[in-house]
Amino acid sequence: MKPFRADILAIGSELLHGGRVDSNSIFIAEMLAHCGIRVGRKISLSDEQGDIQKALRASSRQADVVIVMGGLGSTVDDRTREAVATVFSRPLAIRRKAIQILSRQVQRRGRTVTPLLTKQALIPSGATVLDNLVGTAPGFYVQEGNAHIFALPGVPREARAMMELQVQPILKRKLRATVFLWSHAFNTMGLPETEIQQQISSLFHPSSAIDLSLLASTKGVKVTLSCWRPKNQQSIQPHKTTDFPEGKILIQRIQEALEPWLFSEGEETMEEVVGRLLTSRQWTLALAESCTGGLIAHRLTDVPGSSAYLDRGLVTYSNKAKQELLGVSPALLRKHGAVSGQVAEAMAKGIRVKSHVDLAVSVTGIAGPGGGSAKKPVGLVYMAIDGPQGCQSQRCQFWGDRAEIKFRSSQAALNMIRRYLLQPHG
Amino acid sequence: MKPFRADILAIGSELLHGGRVDSNSIFIAEMLAHCGIRVGRKISLSDEQGDIQKALRASSRQADVVIVMGGLGSTVDDRTREAVATVFSRPLAIRRKAIQILSRQVQRRGRTVTPLLTKQALIPSGATVLDNLVGTAPGFYVQEGNAHIFALPGVPREARAMMELQVQPILKRKLRATVFLWSHAFNTMGLPETEIQQQISSLFHPSSAIDLSLLASTKGVKVTLSCWRPKNQQSIQPHKTTDFPEGKILIQRIQEALEPWLFSEGEETMEEVVGRLLTSRQWTLALAESCTGGLIAHRLTDVPGSSAYLDRGLVTYSNKAKQELLGVSPALLRKHGAVSGQVAEAMAKGIRVKSHVDLAVSVTGIAGPGGGSAKKPVGLVYMAIDGPQGCQSQRCQFWGDRAEIKFRSSQAALNMIRRYLLQPHG
Repeated sequence: MKPFRADILAIGSELLHGGRVDSNSIFIAEMLAHCGIRVGRKISLSDEQGDIQKALRASSRQADVVIVMGGLGSTVDDRTREAVATVFSRPLAIRRKAIQILSRQVQRRGRTVTPLLTKQALIPSGATVLDNLVGTAPGFYVQEGNAHIFALPGVPREARAMMELQVQPILKRKLRATVFLWSHAFNTMGLPETEIQQQISSLFHPSSAIDLSLLASTKGVKVTLSCWRPKNQQSIQPHKTTDFPEGKILIQRIQEALEPWLFSEGEETMEEVVGRLLTSRQWTLALAESCTGGLIAHRLTDVPGSSAYLDRGLVTYSNKAKQELLGVSPALLRKHGAVSGQVAEAMAKGIRVKSHVDLAVSVTGIAGPGGGSAKKPVGLVYMAIDGPQGCQSQRCQFWGDRAEIKFRSSQAALNMIRRYLLQPHG
Repeated sequence: MKPFRADILAIGSELLHGGRVDSNSIFIAEMLAHCGIRVGRKISLSDEQGDIQKALRASSRQADVVIVMGGLGSTVDDRTREAVATVFSRPLAIRRKAIQILSRQVQRRGRTVTPLLTKQALIPSGATVLDNLVGTAPGFYVQEGNAHIFALPGVPREARAMMELQVQPILKRKLRATVFLWSHAFNTMGLPETEIQQQISSLFHPSSAIDLSLLASTKGVKVTLSCWRPKNQQSIQPHKTTDFPEGKILIQRIQEALEPWLFSEGEETMEEVVGRLLTSRQWTLALAESCTGGLIAHRLTDVPGSSAYLDRGLVTYSNKAKQELLGVSPALLRKHGAVSGQVAEAMAKGIRVKSHVDLAVSVTGIAGPGGGSAKKPVGLVYMAIDGPQGCQSQRCQFWGDRAEIKFRSSQAALNMIRRYLLQPHG
């Protein structure tokens, strides 16, 4: 009962020393898991022909599936198709289907197909052309011995669509996997990694095959259970827990143990939870941000449909703006300073009155690196929430650099909104 | 004249199928380049003992330097130190220096050293303990044959400090590199990758050893020149161009060719450029954001010291907020709709008058996925700027998903501010 094994080869010098971060492998690994395939290694390589060829040769011998990402564009440093052609002796030729894919996208963007662009229509002989519905570079698929090799563009949106519409169907048809990855994730906030492990390790059955992984970030700690399970042919959604009592029971126990810190499960983000709760109450929200500088509004508006509940957000960086837009009194600012619980409460109350919303939230603090003092160090942040159940404020001391302090503050403020919305309302 | 070669091994199942993106390798590659070391491969591995050991064995034979990142924590899925101990027959033992590093950080966060945490003080025999100034997990260094092997924590801030303060000095002392990486980056916006290549490829000398790489993202296209150069012992800053006339001339030619699209060079971001220009004019800025939802304010406030020029930012998502906070007339909103050049201009003028700033910027558009129509499709965005040189507006049609449209809009708006600030002022 073992999964198939995949290697991901990410091509592009920019992945090694040009400043690009590969984010594709995440959804690729998830989609492969649904086809019964485990990612064994992900190898990032420069654009050097020799390195690409060497890795292709090694991975096609060791892995059942090889996903080659990137290097399919039309500039001089795009060398994936040449590498595949050389290693597997499959000379390149322009393919009609590839030209059609290319032309359709180029025309959609109001440009014309240049000779340079047609390089993208060169495909190794015997390869299947993979359609690209969102970009110009076609992908391709070849089988070499027992290895199924797919070349995808590096642009995330293009790679995702190609994985879903082209690669997954081929893999399901060709490999006929007997296992799939079952997994469940809990998103928590406020409890350190090691304490979470202490809380939940005793909940596992001693002989359990379920793997536990903990991932700490500025969002909190993500707790993931996973396990390879035999495939049930009847089940349409194999990653659901219905046919797996041990997993179901463990999920329940962890939910209970982590309840005070658990803000969502699976892929749901904190901003999505807040949006969902606001929608179900039909409440509107206004924000008064100082040290988070618009980040809370930005995160909330990343959720489609947020215009239904987010009325406005004010980034009141200056004291003048706090007075004019929120009605915070100069005396209060003088007495307690802009970074204080009193000013946070005045900001929340002020914007709630002025905007006539149900709920108002404020954040004021010192994001650094400058501006800190012994009494009010960098990372000191006050936040307040004002709504039908009254006004509450909290004091937080965060650590990290400016970006981390901004993000941790935004996460804590969103969590404060979430908890307020979960209170029983009369 | 060849650089040394490094492999980076990034350990952690979350890098393969848990949703974490590795961002450390970027600065690690840069720091290694300054020591005359080229990253040949970056391999991400799961927490499986067997996979880690296999990769360690292979890389220590093929590379001069091996950087192992992550897996140094104290939870059950942290397995790097065991792998190093097994592969190189160096049994683990608690080291006094490691306990000191651990205790100092734990106490700084107001917690106590638990038995679980002391796992982090286990170090392979004969290894040098590497201090961790910002986190709890000490790193370590061993030499095996010709390979220099460093184990670093996975947390970016911790890995960065350890690279700078511990790893770089050791590498400079032990390897005595004879070459270094010379590189120069141009950040452009508004010209597609292929057109940039056409513009500049003729500028290179036919026998030039300088490499060109192009990297497209929502920020624009990054154009990077790079080349390994012999080390000049006299030069304190070996990556400067002073002693490299070919590079210096090429940089000048590319600056001229890309001038209309070039917004910065090196690592300077668009928000830093805008901040720098605002500071030098001593101008203040106010923002009125609709579809970008606070992202422009968030990006500007990521720059330390931005409180000096950013007076306020308003996220006026609702029409009500546009009327109340910006004084946009209901008649104008009815006649042209919220997404129109007229409303964008009214928003910018409105906030400039109300906040008494030098410069005001507005953005209004349809970020999608809903809300589009045949006449006003998803991705249609209007932006306006109002200042001492009058009011200007522009219409943009972006593509991509909601997050991409928001980001491209923010980038275009910041670029509009940059261009306004570059106009001669009387």
